[in-house]
Amino acid sequence: MSNQNRTTVHIFGQQYTIIGEEGAGHVNKVADLVDQKMREIRHQTNNLDTKQLAVLTAVNITNDYLKLVERVKQLEGKKEE
Amino acid sequence: MSNQNRTTVHIFGQQYTIIGEEGAGHVNKVADLVDQKMREIRHQTNNLDTKQLAVLTAVNITNDYLKLVERVKQLEGKKEE
Repeated sequence: MSNQNRTTVHIFGQQYTIIGEEGAGHVNKVADLVDQKMREIRHQTNNLDTKQLAVLTAVNITNDYLKLVERVKQLEGKKEE
Repeated sequence: MSNQNRTTVHIFGQQYTIIGEEGAGHVNKVADLVDQKMREIRHQTNNLDTKQLAVLTAVNITNDYLKLVERVKQLEGKKEE
């Protein structure tokens, strides 16, 4: 049933193979966003190694994600009124 | 005007200081989610170093984030009808 695609992307100079149901277009969009965020954070704080930078990028995106979860809850709550 | 807090968290065995407007409770929630996702991905794929693991965690969360962006667009679109 599940249709697993393999997409090769480049993030912060390293190659990764992403396996999942999403098509190459979507995976490339995701990878570009991660790469862009890593470069933004590197620009702000130069004294991090790549591992720390990647963790802080994940923290940054998770923060945005949790804000959107709240927004969805709010919108879905309003819809049901 | 901006109120910058410093919160110390632990993600995947390393300490990070997060600086931002969010309170400690929110920052800890974000850090716990990143730590949990990293452990999930490590569980699935054992042959990654921590940097690669952190990048793939960021990819994973960004994927969830972009799906939520679509959901918000959909909900906001419906609201305006």
